[in-house]
Order: sequence, then structure tokens, then C-alpha cells
Amino acid sequence: MSAIELVGGRPVAIVGAGLVGAGWAIAFARAGLTVRIYDSNQDTADASLPWAAEQLEALHKHGLLGDAPDTVKRRLTVVQTLEAGLDGCAYVQESVLERVDVKRKVMLEIERLAADDLIVGSSSSGIAASAFANDLTISPRVLIAHPVNPPYLVPVVEIVPSTQTSPQAVIFVDALMQAIGQSVVHVRKEIEGFVLNRLQAVLLREAWALVRDGVASCEDVDKTVRDGLGWRWSFMGPFETIDLNAPGGVADYAARLGSLYYSIAKSRTGEGPWEPELVTRVEAERRQYLPATELASRRAWRDDRLMSFAAIRSRSGSHE
Amino acid sequence: MSAIELVGGRPVAIVGAGLVGAGWAIAFARAGLTVRIYDSNQDTADASLPWAAEQLEALHKHGLLGDAPDTVKRRLTVVQTLEAGLDGCAYVQESVLERVDVKRKVMLEIERLAADDLIVGSSSSGIAASAFANDLTISPRVLIAHPVNPPYLVPVVEIVPSTQTSPQAVIFVDALMQAIGQSVVHVRKEIEGFVLNRLQAVLLREAWALVRDGVASCEDVDKTVRDGLGWRWSFMGPFETIDLNAPGGVADYAARLGSLYYSIAKSRTGEGPWEPELVTRVEAERRQYLPATELASRRAWRDDRLMSFAAIRSRSGSHE
Repeated sequence: MSAIELVGGRPVAIVGAGLVGAGWAIAFARAGLTVRIYDSNQDTADASLPWAAEQLEALHKHGLLGDAPDTVKRRLTVVQTLEAGLDGCAYVQESVLERVDVKRKVMLEIERLAADDLIVGSSSSGIAASAFANDLTISPRVLIAHPVNPPYLVPVVEIVPSTQTSPQAVIFVDALMQAIGQSVVHVRKEIEGFVLNRLQAVLLREAWALVRDGVASCEDVDKTVRDGLGWRWSFMGPFETIDLNAPGGVADYAARLGSLYYSIAKSRTGEGPWEPELVTRVEAERRQYLPATELASRRAWRDDRLMSFAAIRSRSGSHE
Repeated sequence: MSAIELVGGRPVAIVGAGLVGAGWAIAFARAGLTVRIYDSNQDTADASLPWAAEQLEALHKHGLLGDAPDTVKRRLTVVQTLEAGLDGCAYVQESVLERVDVKRKVMLEIERLAADDLIVGSSSSGIAASAFANDLTISPRVLIAHPVNPPYLVPVVEIVPSTQTSPQAVIFVDALMQAIGQSVVHVRKEIEGFVLNRLQAVLLREAWALVRDGVASCEDVDKTVRDGLGWRWSFMGPFETIDLNAPGGVADYAARLGSLYYSIAKSRTGEGPWEPELVTRVEAERRQYLPATELASRRAWRDDRLMSFAAIRSRSGSHE
């Protein structure tokens, strides 16, 4: 089913129109959906439209829009109240501040205003839905739909139900996300960091430890990933990578290298938090490669590279 | 300096002509060097030439060869003896079996036959050079030059000196590798797994633990990386990624997320080796996505994707 069919022709709402929420607005509008944008700070909501227009132009240049940028832009409307945002909506993507009390407050407001069948996805990157969405009439219809930024470029989205989310809500959000072109990962337990940030966390911890111990510089760690490991991971993922890296597949790989990897893991079990002195050292090394004044332009470079990457992937098929 | 200037017009030698050694032969020949290929198993050495010819055709099709495939192929010669291989050579890339006794034996032979200025790089992916190359007359001229497979596609190479390697040897191999187009990472201590496999190891351990605990399927872990984390890592590396992901750069990122990442790391300190039952489960899941009979064809798919990726990178500049 198309995204429009899934929502029965009804609009979707964005609540919280910062970088994440505004990014979601583009992802939904690109798929043909009518999108209402609300933010408790009216300036934030207003600023999202010209920003989205710029992104749509860039997407168009990279061949990543099916419709004309103006056509997609016309699907976006800023509304003044949460009530106006939710009226008649089939789905709302909540992207407010990452704080339990703030998210709980929004859920209480949504409960008061929403239609009986509204489904609520939260962009929370770390807080589990059970911490702010339970024991409400809407609880069976709330879950986490955690994107990578920006969601209209990097397709992965983690769906994490709370202890009270209904299977129907999970099925709906899975279908909607796939219909707008996202790649859905089901996280089946409310574990800290979900899957994506856990995987990033362990790699980062080893990276910091290698720099701390004088084994390699930050730049050499970055090279190891961007000129080595990252190539395969950008189209295969870690399990497929090792499955293809031993003659007999993944079990063969585990037999050959499991003990080495266990030994490496054991060597790090006594680690503490990142020391302030180490953070200072890493910051200093990064600033040699990229002065603080160039952070913004480098982010623009990154987004341009991600658009090129997305364009290549959309031509070659994501996994075939 | 060009690679040819660096070796003073002399040949380089490949000792051990399996997949790794034959891959190196292509990387050197592509850069204009004359390459002698030796393997103690004559059949292995002979088989490397037609295989290399196929790879050169594929590289040519992807626009990754400066010269005609035949021109590059003519730079490759199989020799019958190690003595003939090393005669007059400036550099030898050792890629024999990953076993201390086998590597030690080859080093003793090289010591007996080599010119006084021969530099020796070993493709060892895990064994430190000090374990097999110390206390020889050639020891100051031996170091690890560990590639990712295949080295003519994925550019990273880890240079790891032994406790007896001279700085001059490190400088020479660094220059030679850069001249043939590799991306050099300096590993400054002989740590288990060097840098690349340590980073892979920690991510894999978390991936296996998530599957074991029922948090996510293998396929969903793979999606998280190939449709999420891997995109940025394929052109930025982990430090640059987080440096751009907080308004104030990497120190700001550490202040915001350091405690979450420490908490995630602490949650895994009691982990044991991968259990046989878990290995069986992962193997079974992978075989649902890829039957064992299709492993070989999927490897060909992977190599084609890597060639496309290399072609894109060579057009866009590796890091600009």
C-alpha cells in the first residue's frame, strides 16, 4: 500500500519542529502526505518552512524527489495550536526535547486532543516509551520511531514499542515507514541506546581507548573506518560482512575468530568513563583537522555527501 | 615521489600468492611496479595470473585502471624460487599462512637470500611482527603492512612496526603505500587485533549480544548499520562523525553523551565467549537470507559493489 492509502488520505502531524521534526516533515511530504507542523515555539515552526524548501531544492538536484520541489512544499503547513495540528490526523511524529518530563507533558496533551485512532511515533533516541507514554488511553498507540538525522536521507528507523504498545500500532508504523521509504529495524526490548546507539557506543569506546593508550591518532582511527571497515558496512552490515569473510559462512567465521574477539573484549572490561584530559586531547586533535569556525561548512559538506550517497543507493537498489 | 621512483626502478616481490598476496600484486602492478610472484606451492602461484587478469578487466570496466589491463598484467611474473623472487628487489610483501612458525621460517629464508636494503612488509592480520621477525639481521627492515581484502579496492593499510623495526623502514613503507594509492594508518603499539580488527571486534560483540538477548534479529542489526551508521562511516570515520554531531564539536558531544556510552559499555563487562548455541542460531538466520550455495555469488556481488564504491570515491576525492 502507498503511504496515502495507509493513512486513508488523512494528514500527518509533526510535533516539535526542530532539526529532527522538520526532517521528518520532508520525509512524509516527499511520499505525498499532507503534513501539519506544530511547535510550542512559533518561530521554530515558522523557520522550518524555508529550511525545508532549501532541502527540497537540494534533494531535487540530486534526483531524490519524484515531484517538483514546490509541489512537495505545498504539502507542508504550519499550524498555531496542537489541536489544529492533530485534527483529523492519522499519525503524529513527536520530536520534542529529549527529556522525560517534556515528552510526558506532550503525551498528556495528545491524549486530551487526539482522535481515538491516532497513532503516535516518538523520535526519542534514548528514552524508552514506557518512561513517558504508559498508563494513558493512548498508550497502546504510542511507540518509538527513532530516526538517524536527517531521516529523508539516511533511511534507518528503529521501532521500539513500550510495554503497553499494541501489535497493531507496531504493524501500522512499520508499514507507514516502509511506504515512505525508510528501512525499519524492530527493537524488541527497551534497552538503553536501542540498537543503533549501542553499536555506535561500543565502537566509539574502543576508538577513544586506542587514542588514550597512544595506539593510534584520532585521524588514523577515522581512516581505518572511512577507508576500510565503513566501505562494506555501508551496504552490507556486520553479519553479512563476516558471513562472506569465511569460506563456510558465519559459523565458520566464529570458529576461526571468536576467541580473538573474545580476547579483545576481555581486554577492555575494566574501563572507566572518558577522562576529561582525554576529551581535551581528542578535541585538540580534531581542531587541528577542522577549526571550530569550519564546523558548519563541514556539516554542509557531509549532507552533500549523504545526498550523493542516497542518490547512488536509490539507483542501485538498497540491497540488491 | 612515484612508486617507481621510491623503489629506484627495482621490482617488488610477493611471497605467498593466495587471495591476499595476489591482491597485493594487482595493487603494486597497477601503480607501474614490476612484480615477481612466488609461492611455495607452484599451483597457487600459477593460478594467481589468470585470476589477476580477470580482476584487471573488472577494474578497467569500472574506470579504476590508468593503463590497459594487458599492460598491467605484463608487469606480473611468476617465479619458481624465492631466490629468483627476491633478486634485486626493493620490497617484498609477505602473505603466507597466518601462523608464527610459518612466518618465522619465511623470515629466516628472506634473511639468507635478501639484499642488504630489502624492506619486508607482512600482511599479518593478527600476529605482531615481534613474534616472528626479531633478532635477525633483517629485523630493522621488517614490519606489518596489514591490508583489508582486496587491497586494490579497499585502500586502508595498517603499518605496525615490531620492537626492532627502524624508523626508516616505517617511513619507506608509508611512502610506498601512499604512492600506490593506499590509505596508511600507523599503529604505534603491537596491540592484539591492531586497530581495524579491534574496532570490528567490539561492534561484532555487541551485535552478537543483541541477537542472543532477543533485542534484534541479525538482519535488523545489519540494516541498522548498512542503512544507518555505515553511511557516515563510509566517508567520515567515527571521530569526525561525532565532531559534526554536536553543536560545539567532539568535546561537546562527549559532555552530552559520554555518560550514556559509559553506561552501555558497563552493561557488557561480564560477557563470555560466543556460545555454540548462539553461533548455530545466527548461522541459521543468515542461511535464511543467503543459502550456503549462494555464498560465492554473493561474494562476487560484494566485490562488484566495492568496485562501484571505489570508482565513486576516486571521482569525488577520498576525503574532500
